[in-house]
Amino acid sequence: MSWKRSERLIDMTNYLLNHPRDLISLTFFAERYSAAKSSISEDITILKEIFELQGIGKIITIPGAAGGVKYFVTVKEAQVKPFIDDLCQLLANPDRLLPGGYLYMQDIIGNPQIMDQVGRMFASKFGDQEIDAVMTVATKGIPLAYATASYLNVPVVIVRKDTKVTEGSTVSINYVSGSTKRIQTMLLARKSLKEGSRVLIVDDFMKAGGTINGMISLLNEFNASYAGIAVLIEAEEVEDRLIDQYTSVVKLSNVDAREKKITVSEGNYFLT
Amino acid sequence: MSWKRSERLIDMTNYLLNHPRDLISLTFFAERYSAAKSSISEDITILKEIFELQGIGKIITIPGAAGGVKYFVTVKEAQVKPFIDDLCQLLANPDRLLPGGYLYMQDIIGNPQIMDQVGRMFASKFGDQEIDAVMTVATKGIPLAYATASYLNVPVVIVRKDTKVTEGSTVSINYVSGSTKRIQTMLLARKSLKEGSRVLIVDDFMKAGGTINGMISLLNEFNASYAGIAVLIEAEEVEDRLIDQYTSVVKLSNVDAREKKITVSEGNYFLT
Repeated sequence: MSWKRSERLIDMTNYLLNHPRDLISLTFFAERYSAAKSSISEDITILKEIFELQGIGKIITIPGAAGGVKYFVTVKEAQVKPFIDDLCQLLANPDRLLPGGYLYMQDIIGNPQIMDQVGRMFASKFGDQEIDAVMTVATKGIPLAYATASYLNVPVVIVRKDTKVTEGSTVSINYVSGSTKRIQTMLLARKSLKEGSRVLIVDDFMKAGGTINGMISLLNEFNASYAGIAVLIEAEEVEDRLIDQYTSVVKLSNVDAREKKITVSEGNYFLT
Repeated sequence: MSWKRSERLIDMTNYLLNHPRDLISLTFFAERYSAAKSSISEDITILKEIFELQGIGKIITIPGAAGGVKYFVTVKEAQVKPFIDDLCQLLANPDRLLPGGYLYMQDIIGNPQIMDQVGRMFASKFGDQEIDAVMTVATKGIPLAYATASYLNVPVVIVRKDTKVTEGSTVSINYVSGSTKRIQTMLLARKSLKEGSRVLIVDDFMKAGGTINGMISLLNEFNASYAGIAVLIEAEEVEDRLIDQYTSVVKLSNVDAREKKITVSEGNYFLT
């Protein structure tokens, strides 16, 4: 088959979207479409422009014999702001109030589109950094971790609060829950993280930051480090937070169970 | 901005990939690009052809005033067969043997690319049916459920084996684990599934099928039904399986801990 430009562009768009942060040589595309490298270069110019214009992402050209192109997910403030506003409104719905001041969250966590958009945001913020894995704690953080990891093109590492026989040997640490001050245990399968990895920590909710602090302690056990901390919701009323550098999408300022009022605002995503 | 065909095709590809199973009117695209509907129709023809050729998916045209196009994820046998072969080889690696004959799986479950490909396969098989949600049980099935749900454009419903305070009222059932014959409990937040929903059940592993049978019992409590059952791995040696209709990607025939040999073959995906 001889490929026309319009046909190549469709397939290249799909290919790039499925291979974020991979280095793809122009030769690869030239052979895939039996096209001249110069034609592929022109294709890339058009792709770059539209990806940028539409907030799909940025395409970086790496020159030289070992060069090629890399696609990075990005988000546009103009697209994300309305998304965050909608999310705030969704969260402020008093129907999600549960006994004890807890909030029902499964409608948000269970929505792959919301998870995907938040994953895009996190990948956009940290995509330029060297990241080997996304780490989270079971179970609510899992969807967000996968959404982020698929845009970063790295594996997901899941920390647990209970032991499973099917994980083999584990490394465990004790940590103090920031809000309840109770001592808890979390563990990670020894096989699931390579020594010296650089990790992005992702979670659905951060109050005092005890759980995230626990994950950082676990990282130390693997001689690993973290590139950043990203949470969907931060609780604002916390006095002595254990974590000071993080990115949040929304901020939960107040939950008034008596008045049935939940106060939510934009997080620090665009400030960090 | 006045859009050229080549530019439109890039953006349309991205838009369709992000909106599977959504009905998109030609007017929407015509307005988005300030283009004539006839030009958009021609664009769609090119998109259709390349999506089909490259195994990206199928684009269906719904005629009439309320019509438009719908994108469905599909997979090509020629692309999926090598993927399944690789997965079998990966699974047969004796390094994943754990005490008690269990298999370490987190490297596979934690790989978003593998999860994504399996999600594509499941969405391709069931995408034509009416499906309102994807259901799984925490925690190993969660990544697969999200991958599938995002291609089907429906929410994820997560059944638990433990109670969480943050879910509100739940419906619980007792079920008999098919392989250990023990009585266990599983529960689902009342809010998380609408009465009468049609659900696709997804899980990472099926032995006798007790867990899946439990999910079916739970569905009955919600007057809900299931459109299908899809698992990543089925264990073959089971004598009296509780479930007879299901789709599997791979089949685990034998785990010989003494000889350190794991026997894996292709599942029934292409036979069902």
